[in-house]
Amino acid sequence: MRELVPNGSRLEEARPHLTGLALASCVVLSMVTQAFAQASSAAHTQVVQLVDERAANWKQVSKQIWDYPELGYHEEKSSALLQAQLKAAGFSVEAGVADEPTAFIASYGKGKPVIAILGEFDALPGLSQKPIPQRSPVLPNAPGHGCGHNLLGSGAALAAVAVMEYMAANHVAGTLRYYGTPAEEGGSGKVFMVRAGLFKDVDVVLHWHPGDRNSVTNGGMLAVISAKVTFHGVAAHAAMAPERGRSALDAVMLMGNGIEFMREHVPSNSRMHYIITKGGVAPNVVPDLAQMYLVARNPSNTVLQDIWDRLLNISQGAALMTGTTVDVTDIHSDANIIGNDALAPVVQRNLEEVGGFTLTEAEKAFAVEIQKTLNIDTVPSLDATHLIEPLRPVDLNAPSASTDVGDVSWTVPTIGFITATFVPGVAPHTWQASALAGMSIGQGGMVVASKALALTAVDLFSNPALVQAARADFDRKLTGKAYRTFIPAGQKPPINYRDN
Amino acid sequence: MRELVPNGSRLEEARPHLTGLALASCVVLSMVTQAFAQASSAAHTQVVQLVDERAANWKQVSKQIWDYPELGYHEEKSSALLQAQLKAAGFSVEAGVADEPTAFIASYGKGKPVIAILGEFDALPGLSQKPIPQRSPVLPNAPGHGCGHNLLGSGAALAAVAVMEYMAANHVAGTLRYYGTPAEEGGSGKVFMVRAGLFKDVDVVLHWHPGDRNSVTNGGMLAVISAKVTFHGVAAHAAMAPERGRSALDAVMLMGNGIEFMREHVPSNSRMHYIITKGGVAPNVVPDLAQMYLVARNPSNTVLQDIWDRLLNISQGAALMTGTTVDVTDIHSDANIIGNDALAPVVQRNLEEVGGFTLTEAEKAFAVEIQKTLNIDTVPSLDATHLIEPLRPVDLNAPSASTDVGDVSWTVPTIGFITATFVPGVAPHTWQASALAGMSIGQGGMVVASKALALTAVDLFSNPALVQAARADFDRKLTGKAYRTFIPAGQKPPINYRDN
Amino acid sequence: MRELVPNGSRLEEARPHLTGLALASCVVLSMVTQAFAQASSAAHTQVVQLVDERAANWKQVSKQIWDYPELGYHEEKSSALLQAQLKAAGFSVEAGVADEPTAFIASYGKGKPVIAILGEFDALPGLSQKPIPQRSPVLPNAPGHGCGHNLLGSGAALAAVAVMEYMAANHVAGTLRYYGTPAEEGGSGKVFMVRAGLFKDVDVVLHWHPGDRNSVTNGGMLAVISAKVTFHGVAAHAAMAPERGRSALDAVMLMGNGIEFMREHVPSNSRMHYIITKGGVAPNVVPDLAQMYLVARNPSNTVLQDIWDRLLNISQGAALMTGTTVDVTDIHSDANIIGNDALAPVVQRNLEEVGGFTLTEAEKAFAVEIQKTLNIDTVPSLDATHLIEPLRPVDLNAPSASTDVGDVSWTVPTIGFITATFVPGVAPHTWQASALAGMSIGQGGMVVASKALALTAVDLFSNPALVQAARADFDRKLTGKAYRTFIPAGQKPPINYRDN
Amino acid sequence: MRELVPNGSRLEEARPHLTGLALASCVVLSMVTQAFAQASSAAHTQVVQLVDERAANWKQVSKQIWDYPELGYHEEKSSALLQAQLKAAGFSVEAGVADEPTAFIASYGKGKPVIAILGEFDALPGLSQKPIPQRSPVLPNAPGHGCGHNLLGSGAALAAVAVMEYMAANHVAGTLRYYGTPAEEGGSGKVFMVRAGLFKDVDVVLHWHPGDRNSVTNGGMLAVISAKVTFHGVAAHAAMAPERGRSALDAVMLMGNGIEFMREHVPSNSRMHYIITKGGVAPNVVPDLAQMYLVARNPSNTVLQDIWDRLLNISQGAALMTGTTVDVTDIHSDANIIGNDALAPVVQRNLEEVGGFTLTEAEKAFAVEIQKTLNIDTVPSLDATHLIEPLRPVDLNAPSASTDVGDVSWTVPTIGFITATFVPGVAPHTWQASALAGMSIGQGGMVVASKALALTAVDLFSNPALVQAARADFDRKLTGKAYRTFIPAGQKPPINYRDN
Repeated sequence: MRELVPNGSRLEEARPHLTGLALASCVVLSMVTQAFAQASSAAHTQVVQLVDERAANWKQVSKQIWDYPELGYHEEKSSALLQAQLKAAGFSVEAGVADEPTAFIASYGKGKPVIAILGEFDALPGLSQKPIPQRSPVLPNAPGHGCGHNLLGSGAALAAVAVMEYMAANHVAGTLRYYGTPAEEGGSGKVFMVRAGLFKDVDVVLHWHPGDRNSVTNGGMLAVISAKVTFHGVAAHAAMAPERGRSALDAVMLMGNGIEFMREHVPSNSRMHYIITKGGVAPNVVPDLAQMYLVARNPSNTVLQDIWDRLLNISQGAALMTGTTVDVTDIHSDANIIGNDALAPVVQRNLEEVGGFTLTEAEKAFAVEIQKTLNIDTVPSLDATHLIEPLRPVDLNAPSASTDVGDVSWTVPTIGFITATFVPGVAPHTWQASALAGMSIGQGGMVVASKALALTAVDLFSNPALVQAARADFDRKLTGKAYRTFIPAGQKPPINYRDN
Repeated sequence: MRELVPNGSRLEEARPHLTGLALASCVVLSMVTQAFAQASSAAHTQVVQLVDERAANWKQVSKQIWDYPELGYHEEKSSALLQAQLKAAGFSVEAGVADEPTAFIASYGKGKPVIAILGEFDALPGLSQKPIPQRSPVLPNAPGHGCGHNLLGSGAALAAVAVMEYMAANHVAGTLRYYGTPAEEGGSGKVFMVRAGLFKDVDVVLHWHPGDRNSVTNGGMLAVISAKVTFHGVAAHAAMAPERGRSALDAVMLMGNGIEFMREHVPSNSRMHYIITKGGVAPNVVPDLAQMYLVARNPSNTVLQDIWDRLLNISQGAALMTGTTVDVTDIHSDANIIGNDALAPVVQRNLEEVGGFTLTEAEKAFAVEIQKTLNIDTVPSLDATHLIEPLRPVDLNAPSASTDVGDVSWTVPTIGFITATFVPGVAPHTWQASALAGMSIGQGGMVVASKALALTAVDLFSNPALVQAARADFDRKLTGKAYRTFIPAGQKPPINYRDN
Repeated sequence: MRELVPNGSRLEEARPHLTGLALASCVVLSMVTQAFAQASSAAHTQVVQLVDERAANWKQVSKQIWDYPELGYHEEKSSALLQAQLKAAGFSVEAGVADEPTAFIASYGKGKPVIAILGEFDALPGLSQKPIPQRSPVLPNAPGHGCGHNLLGSGAALAAVAVMEYMAANHVAGTLRYYGTPAEEGGSGKVFMVRAGLFKDVDVVLHWHPGDRNSVTNGGMLAVISAKVTFHGVAAHAAMAPERGRSALDAVMLMGNGIEFMREHVPSNSRMHYIITKGGVAPNVVPDLAQMYLVARNPSNTVLQDIWDRLLNISQGAALMTGTTVDVTDIHSDANIIGNDALAPVVQRNLEEVGGFTLTEAEKAFAVEIQKTLNIDTVPSLDATHLIEPLRPVDLNAPSASTDVGDVSWTVPTIGFITATFVPGVAPHTWQASALAGMSIGQGGMVVASKALALTAVDLFSNPALVQAARADFDRKLTGKAYRTFIPAGQKPPINYRDN
Repeated sequence: MRELVPNGSRLEEARPHLTGLALASCVVLSMVTQAFAQASSAAHTQVVQLVDERAANWKQVSKQIWDYPELGYHEEKSSALLQAQLKAAGFSVEAGVADEPTAFIASYGKGKPVIAILGEFDALPGLSQKPIPQRSPVLPNAPGHGCGHNLLGSGAALAAVAVMEYMAANHVAGTLRYYGTPAEEGGSGKVFMVRAGLFKDVDVVLHWHPGDRNSVTNGGMLAVISAKVTFHGVAAHAAMAPERGRSALDAVMLMGNGIEFMREHVPSNSRMHYIITKGGVAPNVVPDLAQMYLVARNPSNTVLQDIWDRLLNISQGAALMTGTTVDVTDIHSDANIIGNDALAPVVQRNLEEVGGFTLTEAEKAFAVEIQKTLNIDTVPSLDATHLIEPLRPVDLNAPSASTDVGDVSWTVPTIGFITATFVPGVAPHTWQASALAGMSIGQGGMVVASKALALTAVDLFSNPALVQAARADFDRKLTGKAYRTFIPAGQKPPINYRDN
């Protein structure tokens, strides 16, 4: 039997048409070449210098946020600090937007174009870690910045301040915004901001994320839905009258089994994972309440909708099998990212212009210690901190995760990238990432990001054709598609989504 | 925590009210005492002699049936032989009744009362065995008489012939019938005979069964339903496109899981068991067809109905979980047995009068060899062949099985018993039982049964009050209850139910 | 197919030989008749009066304990109150025995015989309820006396005080003890007291328990083992690298599945039940830690051992299937109760002498309201509060539970009974039981129990032959058997067993 | 959270280093350019003409094999026909090699180089189909050529005969072989031929396969292992004594569950699938025998070994959970294909030179009818029959299957391709493929394949540097790797592997 790639695949949406992409890139590249010419190297030099001058302050801000890691929707101190700093720099700030107490928008300038930079600042549970290369929590089981959002929010703000200074100094027309976006980690903070219409008049959104390499991410990421699935049964004494009970835990168990049997029959780049958040109170009582916290993902929103419908069927089947009832509470949902073939080459060029950063000897020693703890076969070279990866089409089967940047990218032309804040080989959501986000290596990568963001923003303010090309590519990619979120209409931000 | 028998149990139907039973028994016993007086010992002596004179012939008949073991609804030779013998003895025979080719009714006499004796003659798959005390099939995987129905049908016929001769000699009024009932083993032959109205005018039904002791069985047995549950999915190449498949086998697996999780939540004297009769055709294809053969049992028809409804829910849940469809084909169903407190003491006394049988030295040696193969902790005494167990109320939690005699007992006052055809300690449905059903030990127990059946029939013909008392107890037990079978109206006997 | 009770059953230990039991009971009854003669009716009259005089005080004590319901091993106030009261009455008290802070022994007198009365006082989680006939917790999710141990401990103490007064007044020789026994509900408080040798010199142990009827419980109850089964896997990002994870939750799920598949293949009077106490921390992380809290029960210690070994095999199998490791922490274990055929008729006669109690009109109205909330088909008569059930052999298939009285009964001749503190039809471990334990109905049943305990203790002090007969029956029942607990040697009382 | 491709992936073996591949291809291409120059266009013209002259005969042969579809290892008539035709053409034939009755080697010429062409001819169960565009089996449930191996074997032989004639006419040195290889579909016929050393002296192996496009397949395919996993338990009466049984079916069910839970934790391009080949004999007996037929696959032999070890652990776990025993009988195993970057461009050029084939109007109508039955969203263009796809690196996440050509490719430099014998959009192992393999469309694609094979063989005979380059690339790819098969040493070909 021989391999035949099915021609009539229903995964069309998820699979970029490679040839088309290549063609589009060529067209865009010539436009971009013009952009490069127009954005004088003088402007670039000026912006990079503005970033460098303010870097020490913002490294300090990132460390302060790192010092009090706050979970999604409860980033009171982190949000307040960023707001205060941006106000002090000259931005006007609107706080508590979209029913999210810690969300805010900082603005400068007026008129078109409107260029936005995204800033996140929430931490992760259980990842508390001292800034040292051995596992050692500051507080056991406490949160920590294992995804480096302390760097993300601060680095984005540093870029925003530098661009603002540049605009002021050069009388640049247009509006610059910094979006303080809470609860990226499972809370879908940006989705509610999109729903509130806060991105309606934005022309281009820029974002970055801490990583272990310097690389443009032109699309990709997994659309995601999460929900708590709660079963209600009938309690009974488990020794004396189990036949009178209808076990909600049985329903959770069978739902789990149902999901496992479904795995073979979803596209292999899907993800379904769950924990059990309520598994019974006392072992001698048939549980009348049990709960699963379920997540599903796929590179395509459409495929994910189908998967989710089938998962809901499984929950109904589990209820039917056990004589219980079920209710489903949506927790969060993020769309996949729509890339932008006009913006990607610009960011690529700017990243290459910045050129990453080089570790000091002390940092190298720290990095080597960290790598020793990774337990991986092939330890990647530390050179990745100063190299820039080439621009590649997204591989929809490559390992990936989810972000609420996705929903922004379905609404506004959006482009992003990662920089090497983490030592090469370190995955996010690990104690190693927490450690690095709290010391000079993470801060070094952050400044690379600030510069690339600032350069791209200046390119956009300087070059209306680039803004138009970004919109054209956006329109082309979404022809025949409509943005929707799986979060039910009317649902408020799940401020306490981490309480089980 | 202390034990509290729940007063408000919903198992009421299944649990005889012990005190009530005891009281009823006392009342009946005095009536029965009269019956004993009236059935003169002379009549008993005569009938026993009639059995003894014809025993050799019917032992030979039982051996012939044993020699060609035939599966349910396909007992052509066995049925024909019994019919021929009964015709030769003077019965008139109606064959092929109730749409069952091998069912028949042999009749003698006319008018009331109508007393019936049941005769079964079907074999079991895979239990072929030579009449020797070591495992050795006559033909590998062939059927065998592991439940001793060759003895059952022949012994019942021997009793019928003896009673007929007695009636003829003594000008006894009334009708005697022998019901040739096919497919007791999973085919519910008698249920279709009941449905066809063949028992409508019968006053009392007598039956016996091979066992490893001599004992009256006054009620009990498990109501049973069986069905084939078939799932239909979508085939797909299991390596190249499993995501396009919807696996019927997954549905069978999840249905099995659902049943296992339900076990804790049914009364503990329930039984649910299944095999997988279709599990996919080729491992590289997602199966679009899979099938479970499912059986459920409980001492109470009512409780069983509830259990069966829940099992059907599980099948729906499994279909829902897997994106498949399901259909359920009923195979068979038997009711539990309604005992009779008027008849039970009469049979008890007659069994005691007959007194079992004593093994010869050669038979003892054979029996000891058989017992060596049983692998049980406590080997029971061989004395059980000549002792009669005392009459006890049914223990609804004791190990039990099912029989289509149950449906007869919901229609007509019915009583039965077992005799020690199998060596004490031997279970039915084993090769040991097959071996014993084909040699003198089984045949010895058969003649004990023939005598006890014949004596009871003669008592009933002699004593109209006994027939009335049987009916009165029957009416009392079924007050407020209605017989129903789970076999759908209009379903024909499942002649080929053993084909998977 | 017909029912055949297997002769070679391996459940022999668990099934009393009915005929033997009946015979033994007859022999004992004649001895007991002598006992009745010797225990003069005058003594009985005196003791009953002593109880009546002190009843009001101890009803008040029971209410105080009810007012601050304390969970197992944390019954500080309850234990202190009982100790103080018993000291005030003239007992000497040794507290904190057997490494249990709330365990104590109160003693009076000296020399042989040593007669002990057991007192429990722990509450149950989640059963907080006001003393009214509608569901209404005092505090939501707070503990409550749903098993009536506030009555148990107080009623037993009332009996002890009355007997002490009687002994003092009549110069009776011998030692009377009250055992304050913590954590009956899942903590096996008495097992550690047995292990510490605290029952070594006791001749007879008496106990009672709140119930919904008045009835002697001569043996029975389920031997039980519980443990926390913890699996350890490898965490991984559930979206980006699930293939690197080894899920501890998968192991718990498969262990659950394994248990469900085992249900069909254990004796049907076994019980296996579990909850999931750790089911993962965040849904986007493959859980490296998961935990099941597992309980198994059977009427026979021996059968339970076999079941438990198989459950441990399942845990090993689940680890093997998932690439995880497993450890098992024993939580508690109680033996089944060894009855005593010498003591049971004595208690039966004393209960009949006391004769239960009759509800007032107000109490009847309360009881009727309570019964309306039970949702059961057949509501039992309120007469059960003043009737005494006849003495019956234990039905090993009847609904039952477990108690650490079992371990005492394997060590010392022991007898117990229940009285109708709960309205007929109310099950223990319900809010209805909590309500009744806090008002006059529960207290009325308590005084019945105090009297029957006190009368039996006086019989034992008066009649050395009865003490000897109790010992003889105890020795006969345990011939060839050795007590063992499944709690590992060296394990301390699990003071915090309720923390998941 | 953002995507980070893990640098330290342990999937290294399976993922070609793209840049390296591109570089190697460039180097090879220049060599190949020389090859093209040397293989004169005259030679190519001559060979194509030889194929065309013999095409009618071999189309007829392919139809004869199609007319009597024979399952793996039982291709008696098909093998005999091919042997007879090749002998008649001038080949010498050795039959019954490698303990496979239907395997053979046809040889022509002598000395180096040794160029081999592979020929398969086995059919698939259940795919009987008339050569019409509606589902209509010749015989219900009978085998059919749903993978087009009737074309494969015949087309390869046509190429071999044409090359032989060319060699004879032009006195070309070297040896040409045709390997008649049975049981490709799940029987691993070639693996035993490799093990027997039959490919030891071969320089290059050429193969083709029917498909729905014209495309070189330079590597890829899934390594595969299959086995029958059989559990042995203890039978018992499922109603009377289920507690005495140990269910082999339970073990199969739990093994299935274990596999499903493992799916999340294997690389997502793995495949695990199974059917249940023995699921119990009668539903009233606890099954003492049950069997799963299991297949596992991954693009990498090394990863597959790890997966298989874990699957064996699951089987052990299932046995442990159920008190059963397990044995595993290996059925077949194929390695993944090692591509060849020297040979791939040569085949690509030859395919382009041949240029596919164009459907007649009648064929187009037939094709359109077939496409209507496919139920796919996007129906591919019929132009695919005359277009050649560009040469691309293998995508290890693309849908794929397995072939025993893999094991050959680990032993000898090997290259293959597919041609459009099936209408674009038709998958192999479908009735549509069966229909097309028996009519002119399939035969048209077959002749394209014959020509491309013949041209490549002539190139190899003409150009020693190309043979050397093929070997050099082979050596480079296998540096540090050793071929092994999972089929146990000493195992004979599983002649009856299709009997369940």
